[in-house]
This record gives sequence, C-alpha cells and structure tokens, in this order.
Amino acid sequence: MKIVFVGAGNLATRLSLAMQRVGMQIGQVYSHTAESAGQLAGRLGCPWTTDLSVLQPDADLYVFSLKGTVLEEVIAGVKPNNGLWIHTAGSMPMTVFEGHASRYGVLYPLQTFSKGREVNFDVIPLFLEANTDKEGAYFKNIATALSENVRFLSSEKRRHLHLAAVFACNFTNHIYTLAYKLLEKEEIPAEVLLPLIDETVAKIHTMSPAAAQTGPAIRYDKNVINKHLAMLDDPDMKAIYQLLSWSIHKESQDE
Amino acid sequence: MKIVFVGAGNLATRLSLAMQRVGMQIGQVYSHTAESAGQLAGRLGCPWTTDLSVLQPDADLYVFSLKGTVLEEVIAGVKPNNGLWIHTAGSMPMTVFEGHASRYGVLYPLQTFSKGREVNFDVIPLFLEANTDKEGAYFKNIATALSENVRFLSSEKRRHLHLAAVFACNFTNHIYTLAYKLLEKEEIPAEVLLPLIDETVAKIHTMSPAAAQTGPAIRYDKNVINKHLAMLDDPDMKAIYQLLSWSIHKESQDE
Repeated sequence: MKIVFVGAGNLATRLSLAMQRVGMQIGQVYSHTAESAGQLAGRLGCPWTTDLSVLQPDADLYVFSLKGTVLEEVIAGVKPNNGLWIHTAGSMPMTVFEGHASRYGVLYPLQTFSKGREVNFDVIPLFLEANTDKEGAYFKNIATALSENVRFLSSEKRRHLHLAAVFACNFTNHIYTLAYKLLEKEEIPAEVLLPLIDETVAKIHTMSPAAAQTGPAIRYDKNVINKHLAMLDDPDMKAIYQLLSWSIHKESQDE
Repeated sequence: MKIVFVGAGNLATRLSLAMQRVGMQIGQVYSHTAESAGQLAGRLGCPWTTDLSVLQPDADLYVFSLKGTVLEEVIAGVKPNNGLWIHTAGSMPMTVFEGHASRYGVLYPLQTFSKGREVNFDVIPLFLEANTDKEGAYFKNIATALSENVRFLSSEKRRHLHLAAVFACNFTNHIYTLAYKLLEKEEIPAEVLLPLIDETVAKIHTMSPAAAQTGPAIRYDKNVINKHLAMLDDPDMKAIYQLLSWSIHKESQDE
C-alpha cells in the first residue's frame, strides 16, 4: 500500500501521519512550496517535490488535499496512472476527477486539523464516495484501518455537511476569539471562560442545542441586550451581537 | 445559615440545590408565578410564595435571581431587614441595592444553567462583590463552601465578563442549533458533528482560539465561501455566514 500526498496542509499532515501509523507507506509528498513539502516529508521520512511532472506514477492511492481554488488545476496537471485518486474537500464534488482518472473517490474527515496538534483518528467520522462499487469496497477497507466511524455519503449531501461543519467549528471557534478579546481588553484571564465553554458543549451531548439555550437573547431581555450593544465599540462585533440575538429570539418563537 | 430565594429560574434552581447539598437551609422560595415557585420549593422541600409582603424577614441571605428588567422593581418591593442581600446577574451593578438594604453584594456564577441538568458547582468560577470588606469576608466564606474557584470582581469588570459569556456560550450554542438545522434538512444525523465540536473545544485548552482557527474563511477560499452562501436560503443564516466569515478574515489579517 503506497500513497502519494498532493498537498501538505493541516489535513494532509494529520491524515498522512495517521496512515503511516497504521502501517501504510507514504511514498512522496508534493506541495507547491518547498517549505511545506519539505516539512511534511521530513516528519514522514519520505521524498518530496514541488514539481507535478515527477510525481511517482506507481502508487496505490493519490490523496489530493488542497484548497478548492487550486484542486481542479492540480488534478489536471497530474499524468493519468492506475492508482485510486481521492480528494478530501467537503465542498468539492467527486466529479472533479472526471476525464483525469479512471478510479477515483472522496474521503472527507469531519474534523478540524492543525499541523501541530495530534488527533485520535479512531473516532473521526470519515465520509467516503467512490466512482464504482468495486472502488468503494476497496476504499472502505483502507478507511476502516483509520477509523471505526466510516460511511458513504454523496457529493450533494457532503457539501451540506461541510457547510454545517463551518458553523459548528469555524464560527464557534471565532466567537471564542471574540470573547477572549473582550476579556483581554479588561485584563481578565480568558481561561475563566473554559468551564462555561465545556459545559455548553457537554449539554448538547444530552439535549438538543435548541433546548439547551439560555441567556438574555432567549429571554429577550432588552435591558441587558441594549447595555451589551452599548459596550461593543467594534462595529462588526456589534453587528454579530445583534444578528445572533435576533436569530436566537426568532428560533425560540418558532418552537 | 437560612436562605430565601427570590426567583425560581434556571440559575436559582441550580444554585439553591447546590446550597442545600452543602448543608445550607433554604427557608422559602418566591416567584411571581405559583408554578415556578411551587416547582422549585417542591424540589427543595420548603415553603413558597408569590407575595413579596410575606417574605420571611429573618434569613441570613436573600438571593435575588431575576432577569434584569424586573430585578430593581422586586428589590424595591421587599421590606428592609438585617440579612445580606445579593443578586446573581452578570450585567447588573451592585448598586441596585442602594437605599434598599444595608448589607449587600453580588454572586455571579459563570455558567449556563438548565433546570433539568445537574452541574458540578465545585469548578464553577464564582465572581463576588460586597458593599463592605466585612460583608465581603463573610460572603466569601459562604461562596467557598460551593466552589473552589471564588474571586472578587467589580460591577464594571463583571458586565464585560457577562458580555464575553454571552458570546462564548449563548452565541456558540445558537450556532450549534443552526448547524443541526442544516443537517436535519438533509436527513443527516446531527450527532455526526459531536467529535468535531468536542475537538474544537479541546483545542482551545491547549492553544488560543485565534491560533486554532481553520476552514474556508481563514484561507479566504472564495470558491467555497460563494458556494456556501448560495446554499443558504434563510436570509439571517446567510447574513450570519457573511459577517462571521468576514470577521474571521479580518482577524487573521490583524495578526
């Protein structure tokens, strides 16, 4: 089982290390920058390149882990071969491989990856898609070596899942950033928020987030809401406060 | 140590039960509705009333746990006595007691409370304020029986802390609600998001949320962002997506 990685970002880093850990061989890493390619190849102990024309042609699996804007262009730049070509992008259809490869699919790990942070792949939900049932069965074998949580999902459903993940992860994380900024300005250590943040998440393991909602917006406590708005001098933060409070209120009226 | 609770909402429910658990006696519960007062008094095994004029006058501690809009009015409706009067509202100054009580303060537990969900008070950060140092020392003794995490914080700082908590808890929880809705529409079980949500929070225990940020907005992947916007037909969700993506991008440029 030899694998070539095309891309060396956060996801490629964590996925390639997880694959190596379960005994798969990473044959080569490509990135358009020598720095990224060299850094990941150094961790994996394998060759690297910034030149698509020298990609090893005999790997079993080619993992394209690139941002949407360059994915199609890079796929078109790789010479056809007999390997299984997959990408890892939530919002890109499987059909980006059409006309470029005969065996292809998608492996979308529903997780947030940072180069420097180890994650336990065992519990990460992996969403697969393949261009034929035969490729699907072969591909599922590879994926189940990485995680116990593997299922098939169409490109059409996957793009909605990716959108939901942007809300659940990227947007909530950014709101933590804003909350931390508010406290830093007041010289209050931001870590005081952690028990609250932990409990907010623990709650939705036992009840729906709609049922778990608390605070001034669901009570529509205008007194508090107006005081809060007056305290926010950043216009974007004020707009975020208004829009989310309104949305919480609207949601509670719908129920 | 006898305590009277004025208010019977989520916070009053969890705080009174926690106080009872450490051996404090809840003497009476007031709420403006018989249903709420009776429900909490039933759990505590104590008398209840909806009439402020029959509030027991001999308690050591009076806990006013009410939303901001009615807090001042209810305080003004209670006959002066020798107890320590406190409220639990993040955004209300301690001075709401001026002219109504001689001994007063604030106990703000930084947590999200639901009537039906038990919480471990031991780790909840409690922020205290008292009108004199003497009351502060007495009050701190009471609070440390509930939590290991007790400190003093002024009304001015507390209102900023409360604002940050609305972001970190209420807004993130609402974004979970929106993410769940997106998946339910596609008939994908919303629980698939939980490992992602858990990891998003686990990350900020070891790095700042700004350093932990991932996803299309921080890469400013217009291809993905535009596809996502086209998929959102609810105008409020579209506006939330645009505003938060822009704010993530802006934040990453500032660094």
